[in-house]
Amino acid sequence: MAHAVSPLAPKTAPAMPAIEGLRIATGAAGIKYKGRTDVLLMVCDRPASVAGVFTRSRCPSAPVDFCRANLSGGTLRALVVNSGNANAFTGAKGRAATEETARGAAEAVGCTPGEVFLASTGVIGEPLDASKISALLPELASAAAPAGWAEAASAIMTTDTYPKVATRSVEIGGVTVTINGIAKGAGMIAPDMATMLSFVATDADIAAPALQALLSRAVEPSFNSVTVDSDTSTSDTLILFATGAAEARGAPAIADAGDERLTAFRAALSDLLLDLARQVARDGEGARKEIQVTVEGAESDSSAKRIALSIANSPLVKTAVAGEDANWGRVVMAVGKSGEPADRDRLSIWFGDVRVAHAGARDPNYSEDAASAAMRESVIPVRVDLGLGQGRWTVYTCDLTKEYVAINGDYRS
Amino acid sequence: MAHAVSPLAPKTAPAMPAIEGLRIATGAAGIKYKGRTDVLLMVCDRPASVAGVFTRSRCPSAPVDFCRANLSGGTLRALVVNSGNANAFTGAKGRAATEETARGAAEAVGCTPGEVFLASTGVIGEPLDASKISALLPELASAAAPAGWAEAASAIMTTDTYPKVATRSVEIGGVTVTINGIAKGAGMIAPDMATMLSFVATDADIAAPALQALLSRAVEPSFNSVTVDSDTSTSDTLILFATGAAEARGAPAIADAGDERLTAFRAALSDLLLDLARQVARDGEGARKEIQVTVEGAESDSSAKRIALSIANSPLVKTAVAGEDANWGRVVMAVGKSGEPADRDRLSIWFGDVRVAHAGARDPNYSEDAASAAMRESVIPVRVDLGLGQGRWTVYTCDLTKEYVAINGDYRS
Repeated sequence: MAHAVSPLAPKTAPAMPAIEGLRIATGAAGIKYKGRTDVLLMVCDRPASVAGVFTRSRCPSAPVDFCRANLSGGTLRALVVNSGNANAFTGAKGRAATEETARGAAEAVGCTPGEVFLASTGVIGEPLDASKISALLPELASAAAPAGWAEAASAIMTTDTYPKVATRSVEIGGVTVTINGIAKGAGMIAPDMATMLSFVATDADIAAPALQALLSRAVEPSFNSVTVDSDTSTSDTLILFATGAAEARGAPAIADAGDERLTAFRAALSDLLLDLARQVARDGEGARKEIQVTVEGAESDSSAKRIALSIANSPLVKTAVAGEDANWGRVVMAVGKSGEPADRDRLSIWFGDVRVAHAGARDPNYSEDAASAAMRESVIPVRVDLGLGQGRWTVYTCDLTKEYVAINGDYRS
Repeated sequence: MAHAVSPLAPKTAPAMPAIEGLRIATGAAGIKYKGRTDVLLMVCDRPASVAGVFTRSRCPSAPVDFCRANLSGGTLRALVVNSGNANAFTGAKGRAATEETARGAAEAVGCTPGEVFLASTGVIGEPLDASKISALLPELASAAAPAGWAEAASAIMTTDTYPKVATRSVEIGGVTVTINGIAKGAGMIAPDMATMLSFVATDADIAAPALQALLSRAVEPSFNSVTVDSDTSTSDTLILFATGAAEARGAPAIADAGDERLTAFRAALSDLLLDLARQVARDGEGARKEIQVTVEGAESDSSAKRIALSIANSPLVKTAVAGEDANWGRVVMAVGKSGEPADRDRLSIWFGDVRVAHAGARDPNYSEDAASAAMRESVIPVRVDLGLGQGRWTVYTCDLTKEYVAINGDYRS
């Protein structure tokens, strides 16, 4: 079932440079899809430092369990991702499938299974035939080449309507390093497939503990501030790895996330993750509009984030945006239901630049025409000022359309 | 905008007996709707004991604030409800409107404003012209009569597609008493109107503190276990009052909620509230199917309730049911995202009587035909056994259809 490309898709895709020390290959294992690639292999010539963040689901997929266990080793030589089957809720067979895939990758690449990372996305509860993947791996390992980021982003798609790539270049200690990333995701769990996956690589030389600290910090305002439908996948995986190949060009080895030479890198990493995360929101199933919910004046940043998520996850707010309806009453409702400190009589609300509510009532200068014009844009900034403190957060989401229901209400078969 | 009557509407409505000591009138104030009643007055000849539970929203409506303040007085002489305008997020004007309405009711009925209870449902943020209501009240007070429960239920409707009534009779101390209730609600907040309101009256003679204890307990497994779209209204109001008129027929005066003579009454009250609450879920905007989510084997009842709500509020579970898709992977997802204790490898899941998943994987005897047949029913019981403890809870909801998006995505104007 193919869906039309989201009207919010990027107009142009960036040219993706190579990451030194990293090679890529994709292949078609026929796991579920016919006539398209569904397996991605990334190979690092030398052990790369690795960091990861994973779903908080209490029912994680087998590959998530597998990656969590390997993360303590701190090094990555191979990353194998398949689409079409999530290998989630597959019991002992699921664990066996991760082991078989990792063994195959280790043999093909020449490393240990403890240096292999895995991700799977697609249908839940269906046993994954790992032999289809492992049979491909020797060939992929030989074919792997520095180019191929766009192909990598396509191979991991499920209900995504466009591949998601981003790249940034910054200097560390006077030497230019590159960060490349890909992501996929359209619903947290889609028809029977999908989840949010992202893989980010850099040639910078950063030790694993520092990389983990950088990633954990950068994920909060980016991937952890995106929601399509409030449904958290069993498989969400974000892996960041650093080949260190830029060392050969004089880039310093960084051991501490607080190292001041990382200032530009930190900013670029955050910017790249937000770029990818917004691409996921803009490809939300059935999305026609991006919604940027900013809550300010909250008692704390974390309180602002909870209120922003309450607004961004409200089906009534999301359907109102789909209908181009400046229905700020629903925003009040969503603030109220969050349970966070709020004073109804201090609330102000904007759609775009139009203040629609002020001091606990409709804005005295409210103009239906101005509000309606703001709602016709393709990006809808919703801003709430609680008037209580300095806390502030922004969450990114999309509208809720009939197409979302159609995509997710179809029979699996 | 009228919508087709829900396919889940009751086939027959019960005949509603009178409640001794209580009179009813409805009228058309033209607040928003034309050609239909939109004001309800209930009058008690003598002060009735009263109990109430209200929205937990941090941004409650003006009538909710007003009722909360009056509840400490413990007596009700008049209840005034209007549809078409929620008098929520209306600032100082909203407070003034509640005062004007209460003053009008007090004069018409011959009581104090502290004995008047109010509820409003409809558009948020629009000032309510209370003079339209208060002008009607003298006439309604004169016309009020013991019959009229069905008309009362109709007068408070907004996007509801059918009026919601229920009645029970039980004995207290050998004397028959009656409990009547009405409710409205279709979305927690609908297009621009709607919320959940319920008013329940009995001729039993029960003191206000005991009544409050009975209500607070009975609301948990009924109205607090129903969700249409996870969006909590600013105006949710449930008021229970006891005229005490059955005392004239020898019914005992009850001062303590634990009084053993209340055994049948407690059960009947719970049953009636659940009846009304399920009617609300079955009239959920766009609903085609009722979903009954039961979680058992949880560490506690409250843990079971949180997991059941996570499942019942999941748009992916609700769209799957709309599509008659036995997609138990989404149930696993919703268990996982709840954050409650769960062991993936002990989970079992049923749709109707069909066990689809067992011990953390697809049921070995899984039959797509049997599961599909279960999904074609109009009531879909979803049962999850966590295998951890004795905690158990049931939550009632409906499916999520394109019609929900259509109803809520239309322009307000």
